[in-house]
Amino acid sequence: MKDSIIILSGGMDSVTLLHEFQERIALAVTFDYHSRHAEHEIACARWQCHKLGIPHLVINIDFMEQYFRSSLLKNGYEEIPDGQYDETTMKSTVVPFRNGVMLSIAAGIAESQGLQHVLMANHSGDHFVYPDCRPDFVVAMSHAIEEGTTNGVTLFAPYTPLSKREIALRGRELGVDYSHTYSCYKGHDRHCGTCGTCIERKEALEGFDPTEYEA
Amino acid sequence: MKDSIIILSGGMDSVTLLHEFQERIALAVTFDYHSRHAEHEIACARWQCHKLGIPHLVINIDFMEQYFRSSLLKNGYEEIPDGQYDETTMKSTVVPFRNGVMLSIAAGIAESQGLQHVLMANHSGDHFVYPDCRPDFVVAMSHAIEEGTTNGVTLFAPYTPLSKREIALRGRELGVDYSHTYSCYKGHDRHCGTCGTCIERKEALEGFDPTEYEA
Repeated sequence: MKDSIIILSGGMDSVTLLHEFQERIALAVTFDYHSRHAEHEIACARWQCHKLGIPHLVINIDFMEQYFRSSLLKNGYEEIPDGQYDETTMKSTVVPFRNGVMLSIAAGIAESQGLQHVLMANHSGDHFVYPDCRPDFVVAMSHAIEEGTTNGVTLFAPYTPLSKREIALRGRELGVDYSHTYSCYKGHDRHCGTCGTCIERKEALEGFDPTEYEA
Repeated sequence: MKDSIIILSGGMDSVTLLHEFQERIALAVTFDYHSRHAEHEIACARWQCHKLGIPHLVINIDFMEQYFRSSLLKNGYEEIPDGQYDETTMKSTVVPFRNGVMLSIAAGIAESQGLQHVLMANHSGDHFVYPDCRPDFVVAMSHAIEEGTTNGVTLFAPYTPLSKREIALRGRELGVDYSHTYSCYKGHDRHCGTCGTCIERKEALEGFDPTEYEA
């Protein structure tokens, strides 16, 4: 039964989720918030949906670039930092309450289309720096959406306790083509290989990584 | 201390809240979601902020008109119904999870600007038909925003238990000029006087209503 909408960035995690729950997914939504890597991510999201025959929307939420503050945005006040994926390195890349905004819009679309669940691919590796990826947030937001919709839409975030490596191994089983996923926060044509998300990607895909890195 | 952002529609309730908490409000945000009455509401919101010297943003969220289903939107599949403000009449005017979306965006801006609270003017008269105005939603959403932001932004919705009449009486005390507020869901130049929100407005302002109604 197709009763779900998925938030699909075009990164490894949400693309894996798209494959795993393809039978349940009526619609995939990608939000263009004018991040530095938007074009590459969106192209990957589109490619994956086309491959699986899943309807796909790209929704422009450019108010984030105008009014939100983060190094991840094209107007970023700071450069994307290099180095390990840790709290110091990644803190400037937080886009305040980004998941809250995307989940709320997806919930409104779900209710408008009679869908029951919103799928999101947050995972345990994001918890330390992104508050809107943590289990407590997911539970609270699901409750808020359920209370705030007539049909009681809920979130489903099955990767919350998994590591990125565990997700990648699951994706390998499912036959996910990770060459059509994008992670690099710098947004170059090829993955830089040195920013926090590139390092995290390399670790997750070790042994079956199809990515060509700059470094 | 100016530590709050307010969601300001330009209707009676949020304009009253703007006046009551003007000392705490650093920024007012009006969302243009292409409702039938957007232009009139936004003009009122602008007038009131200018009068009080409060910075004001209008943020375009036109994805609602494209992807959400409601008679309130300009692309509305149905006409705005006439008659009492009750569940049957108003049901088609629900915009799914509208408050969730607006609160999430406001929370992201609050966090980006170092503000601590998001103010919203939902009230008890809205509870019966709009799930995202009810006390349980407000509590749950505040919790979700607190969990999902680094600085623990919270909601403040002091009119949740009040009736629209009680808000209007409070506004009269505060000297609010209700001729620069807009309620009519039909969006004509003058308030129609016959739709649910016009009838509700008349009842709330009885005895000191400056509105010129068509009927």
